[in-house]
Amino acid sequence: MSNPLPQGARIGILGGGQLGRMLSVAASRLGFLTHIYEPGANPPAAQVADQCTTASYEDTEALRTFAESVDVITYEFENIPTDALDVLEAIKPIYPNREALRVSQDRITEKDYLNDLGLTTAPYAQVDKLADLQAAAEKIGLPAILKTRRFGYDGKGQSRLKSTDDIETAHSDMAGAPSVLEGFVNFSREISVIAARGINGEIACYDPGENVHRDGILHTTTIPAEIPAMMAMDAALMAGKILNALDYVGVMGVEMFVTPQGLIVNEIAPRVHNSGHWTQNGCAVDQFEQHIRAVAGWPLGDGSRYLDVIMENLIGGDMDRVPDLSKDPKVSLHLYGKADVKKGRKMGHFNRVTSN
Amino acid sequence: MSNPLPQGARIGILGGGQLGRMLSVAASRLGFLTHIYEPGANPPAAQVADQCTTASYEDTEALRTFAESVDVITYEFENIPTDALDVLEAIKPIYPNREALRVSQDRITEKDYLNDLGLTTAPYAQVDKLADLQAAAEKIGLPAILKTRRFGYDGKGQSRLKSTDDIETAHSDMAGAPSVLEGFVNFSREISVIAARGINGEIACYDPGENVHRDGILHTTTIPAEIPAMMAMDAALMAGKILNALDYVGVMGVEMFVTPQGLIVNEIAPRVHNSGHWTQNGCAVDQFEQHIRAVAGWPLGDGSRYLDVIMENLIGGDMDRVPDLSKDPKVSLHLYGKADVKKGRKMGHFNRVTSN
Repeated sequence: MSNPLPQGARIGILGGGQLGRMLSVAASRLGFLTHIYEPGANPPAAQVADQCTTASYEDTEALRTFAESVDVITYEFENIPTDALDVLEAIKPIYPNREALRVSQDRITEKDYLNDLGLTTAPYAQVDKLADLQAAAEKIGLPAILKTRRFGYDGKGQSRLKSTDDIETAHSDMAGAPSVLEGFVNFSREISVIAARGINGEIACYDPGENVHRDGILHTTTIPAEIPAMMAMDAALMAGKILNALDYVGVMGVEMFVTPQGLIVNEIAPRVHNSGHWTQNGCAVDQFEQHIRAVAGWPLGDGSRYLDVIMENLIGGDMDRVPDLSKDPKVSLHLYGKADVKKGRKMGHFNRVTSN
Repeated sequence: MSNPLPQGARIGILGGGQLGRMLSVAASRLGFLTHIYEPGANPPAAQVADQCTTASYEDTEALRTFAESVDVITYEFENIPTDALDVLEAIKPIYPNREALRVSQDRITEKDYLNDLGLTTAPYAQVDKLADLQAAAEKIGLPAILKTRRFGYDGKGQSRLKSTDDIETAHSDMAGAPSVLEGFVNFSREISVIAARGINGEIACYDPGENVHRDGILHTTTIPAEIPAMMAMDAALMAGKILNALDYVGVMGVEMFVTPQGLIVNEIAPRVHNSGHWTQNGCAVDQFEQHIRAVAGWPLGDGSRYLDVIMENLIGGDMDRVPDLSKDPKVSLHLYGKADVKKGRKMGHFNRVTSN
């Protein structure tokens, strides 16, 4: 791979959803062409990509052809099958690296990793069978939340336990999947740090945003978060520690809880992140371009923020609000081109500038 | 045509250059798919479009198939052959309308039209043969500039006359093309108004920018232009007058000269305009989205500007500056994905935020 990638180079993106779509647009701004790999038909990202391969992650031949057609490979989601990664990595570099995927694909591996770095997480315990859950509930205390170790997102694969009465239901909710019980954290706010690390080890962070969830899905991110400057600095240093430890290349989303005892890491996502969409309005370089810059071996943007922004997701029927939102002078719409409106489906988002 | 166009609607764009490319990206933000029609192979716009037809403007069958595949048609350049427009318009609406194209395709028609509206232009005279040029030079005075009536852009098809000695050379430079002699205007600045008109007649203008040219090609646009607020208002009212007279739908670029006698209209372009690229950084809705909103029957964005910006074009070998520019924290790059660097070719631009 030539470093930095020259004009006209091709970037392969695993996953054709809205993140792949916005990565593709950002890549075009830097003069790159993109090739999307996605098992589902007519993915949103293909509408703004140069090429799209529709094939499963088991299709070794399609994976090889894809890898050979591009200069570097990145991804929009962390749950890529290991076998597919083996095929791809033999042909072209993958950024962020395998270690970042290994750590973030499993909630227990991730929490072990973060604690080994000296960072704090919620208390947690491995749960493989009912007896484990009973022991974990006793050790951690209730209320707590049971989550599958792998493949969870947007509140899927989670079950809340208020009291010991909920233990059996929660266990059966997991349908035998290896799980983790996480203790509830007494937090005042959830914040996100969108951090990036370049191929040469430079690190850039955007200002932390404050997240509000609804029904387990991110609802709004407000920038700036109402936290002291020293805590914002702490958050950036913590994110930097994780990126350096992983020898990470690309953008990472790091969710943290603000607690009376300081910042606790909730989870990391080795990719661009919904809570970083505000960077599209109010920064010289947004998180999507920042990620492309990193994986292309370009210098990072410095993450300067010019404006205060509230990002709000449009989920399912929220699309009915688009006609009104399109009249609002402070609103920038970002719709995902998804054909069918479904309950709980992320259809778009908007950024509202609140001051400058 | 359904009005406003719904999610997933298809917008046809005639022309696959950088303007078509940035229109395509803006259309995607609003959930639309684009189909590019372009005679040249591998156009920059196709890299971020859902579909691309490579065919000439004489290929009636390709034009028909294209028109039938989309919901509405727009364009990135004004010199579309009339016969092609006839074929397309019989099948789908074209915005901006034919009248805007008719007026702006010919410098004399355009100047007649503007003067009929009560606006001021440079003095001008029609030149078909050498005797016309001699008479025109006498009437208008020298220095002056001889331009082809049609198909000129970026200083092409132009010849300067300093004295009567230049008359014969200038005439032969035109190679027999119908031409217009334009008197030099004693101006202190050139400004651009990027104005938009919606399907329901609403009008929105961005703040005027100040243009500096080099070798006949736009070099920089600086926002805001250093003109009194009353003159900025005048410029917007003049642009609005043109848009209303044409029953225009879409974005128009209106270049004006600031003179001791007030504002003089230099030329109009019935499309998004190079001097409006600054809107990509510093506005909630940029000129590309504004144009798509208009042709899709959506409400216009209000054109609010949050930041001061200098836009600078990257022409030909200016691409050597990209490595340095990519390190500048205030710079947003917009590169066009053109394979070959050529002298005088627009390869990209950047916006530098100068204050907020």
